Amino acid sequence: MPQQRSEKTHARILETARSLFAKNGYEATGVAEMCAAAEISKGAFYHHFPSKHAVFMELLQGWLDGLDAMLQVARQETTSVPQAILQMAGMMETIFQAAGQQLPMFLEFWTQASRDETVWQTTIAPYRRFQAFFTGLIQEGIEEGSFWPVDPDATGRLILSFAIGVLLQGLLDPQGADWQKVTQQGIQLILKGISQ
Amino acid sequence: MPQQRSEKTHARILETARSLFAKNGYEATGVAEMCAAAEISKGAFYHHFPSKHAVFMELLQGWLDGLDAMLQVARQETTSVPQAILQMAGMMETIFQAAGQQLPMFLEFWTQASRDETVWQTTIAPYRRFQAFFTGLIQEGIEEGSFWPVDPDATGRLILSFAIGVLLQGLLDPQGADWQKVTQQGIQLILKGISQ
Repeated sequence: MPQQRSEKTHARILETARSLFAKNGYEATGVAEMCAAAEISKGAFYHHFPSKHAVFMELLQGWLDGLDAMLQVARQETTSVPQAILQMAGMMETIFQAAGQQLPMFLEFWTQASRDETVWQTTIAPYRRFQAFFTGLIQEGIEEGSFWPVDPDATGRLILSFAIGVLLQGLLDPQGADWQKVTQQGIQLILKGISQ
Repeated sequence: MPQQRSEKTHARILETARSLFAKNGYEATGVAEMCAAAEISKGAFYHHFPSKHAVFMELLQGWLDGLDAMLQVARQETTSVPQAILQMAGMMETIFQAAGQQLPMFLEFWTQASRDETVWQTTIAPYRRFQAFFTGLIQEGIEEGSFWPVDPDATGRLILSFAIGVLLQGLLDPQGADWQKVTQQGIQLILKGISQ
């Protein structure tokens, strides 16, 4: 039972932090405030996390892991790379929903990362694995005969950069377009250009 | 002479603000600090700008106007839309140089914009004109016979989203790739897919 209770406390700290960071910002949220909102002692907090930054890192890691899992499922559920990429494009809506409330927190952290090399290394660098993922996917697509022998790295970066651009616009300008449709049409145009 | 001196003061406030915002952040920079660094009185500051926000807005507007001018020149210097788009892709390096030092300030302001509808309307909304610009450009490319009859809006958004994604990555991760090359290769892939 103590084990279970401890896991619940851990989860409650994460949920409380997510909500406070989104509402008031990362900078403006202190450990004391998190403890009060989660109804735990400071001792309990530091039993679970060495710092506020560690809480943020676990939230970010959870978001990235969720994204990873979605991409893997999309790959496994489909029989060709173009199908997999189209299925991934269809997930943009879900990604928006997961990321939307966290946007102010992400922006705030990027601001810190742009000023601090250590923050950069631990928080922004993980996105690079998505680059490797898409490059590998294009390589597979060439090998299975779906794509012309395009440059896998350049094409992977095209897809990832497009996705990042749509994500940023969709978060900053939700009413500016039907971003799910923008994603799907853009991916279809890219696929059309590289498919045999 | 007073007119000239007044213009010099205006320019000096802008330059001082640009440098302080980039170094210490928008939030952390006060009007008093700007006046001290620019060696002017508070009265002189408020003669030129109603607020710190107004200084930021003029800096942003200047950056957007410069981008506009570069795009117009690229269009006028070329005889076909694909050539114009390739020339615009070649300007990414210059855009990075102009935007690079301002990144922390942009991020900080986006954070505010994501929390405040008024800040949003005056600072982020102007980017939408680039969408209209690229949609018009694709339409022209179809009319001149360079492109297949693609959806101009979807294709314009593909190009703009890709450019925004590259810009964000290039600013946050300058060492992650040769971003000028990424831009050119990506644009070539897009053009290849839509060209007749």
